[in-house]
Amino acid sequence: MADKQLSDLFLDTLKDIYYAERQILKALPKMANAAQSDQLRAGFKEHQQQTEGHVQRLEQVFELLGKPARGKTCDAILGIVEEGKEIMDEFKNTTALDAGLIASGQAVEHYEIARYGTLRTWAEQLGMSEAAKLLQQTLDEEIATDKKLTDLAETEVNKKAA
Amino acid sequence: MADKQLSDLFLDTLKDIYYAERQILKALPKMANAAQSDQLRAGFKEHQQQTEGHVQRLEQVFELLGKPARGKTCDAILGIVEEGKEIMDEFKNTTALDAGLIASGQAVEHYEIARYGTLRTWAEQLGMSEAAKLLQQTLDEEIATDKKLTDLAETEVNKKAA
Repeated sequence: MADKQLSDLFLDTLKDIYYAERQILKALPKMANAAQSDQLRAGFKEHQQQTEGHVQRLEQVFELLGKPARGKTCDAILGIVEEGKEIMDEFKNTTALDAGLIASGQAVEHYEIARYGTLRTWAEQLGMSEAAKLLQQTLDEEIATDKKLTDLAETEVNKKAA
Repeated sequence: MADKQLSDLFLDTLKDIYYAERQILKALPKMANAAQSDQLRAGFKEHQQQTEGHVQRLEQVFELLGKPARGKTCDAILGIVEEGKEIMDEFKNTTALDAGLIASGQAVEHYEIARYGTLRTWAEQLGMSEAAKLLQQTLDEEIATDKKLTDLAETEVNKKAA
């Protein structure tokens, strides 16, 4: 069996996050519709637009690798999104719903922060500086989104739910 | 139907992470056995001991709530652990294995960082300062573990795999 290198792992993980981003694109409109707070709804909608940009950046990275952009089933994001759906069902029409939506959103962001941080480091180590730059841009946006959700949780939404 | 409050969401999420921590306790010895680098193996073993402490802290939080310590199936951690198993299978005996194990470990840590950050904030908002302190202690350890894995990836393991 041929040895597998960091470049194989990089491509594998790129497919994983490409699949994940497209699952997130499907989940975000549902989260926006469920949100009770206008600010939270607007936040999810804004992040959806950003996420479309993240998908495009990933397609650029596939192109830099000379590989077709293809996803690979990502069990992690399926589980995270499934938990978000359960929260939406179980806390529907309750005062705690928005706090639950924020928690779900932050679980999604942290999965992405882990994956983009890893991919950025590997791209650097593989000498792919253009890919590293694209991945860093998305990483910065995921970190900023997570921070915004924390601020929203601390200032408005949870106070209502308490 | 009775309204659900932040306290219900807190208990729900506490059960989620309690289940997750016990799944992580099962996964860590497998990750330690698979690791090629002595430093990485030692890191996973050290984190296993910490994780036992995290389970105990969660049991203290359940006690503070006057509730029995019970888990609730956490699809997110099942998906994250499943992806880690796939990496262990697909990259077995390859030079990229340790880099993949670190990536899996960081996905686990980030899930926990998201959940403990949320639970700590909710505990504060619910006026449960003792619970907030316990959750903050674990959060700090998860952040430190994530940082150690990043350092290991940057200094040693990935160079070998490149």
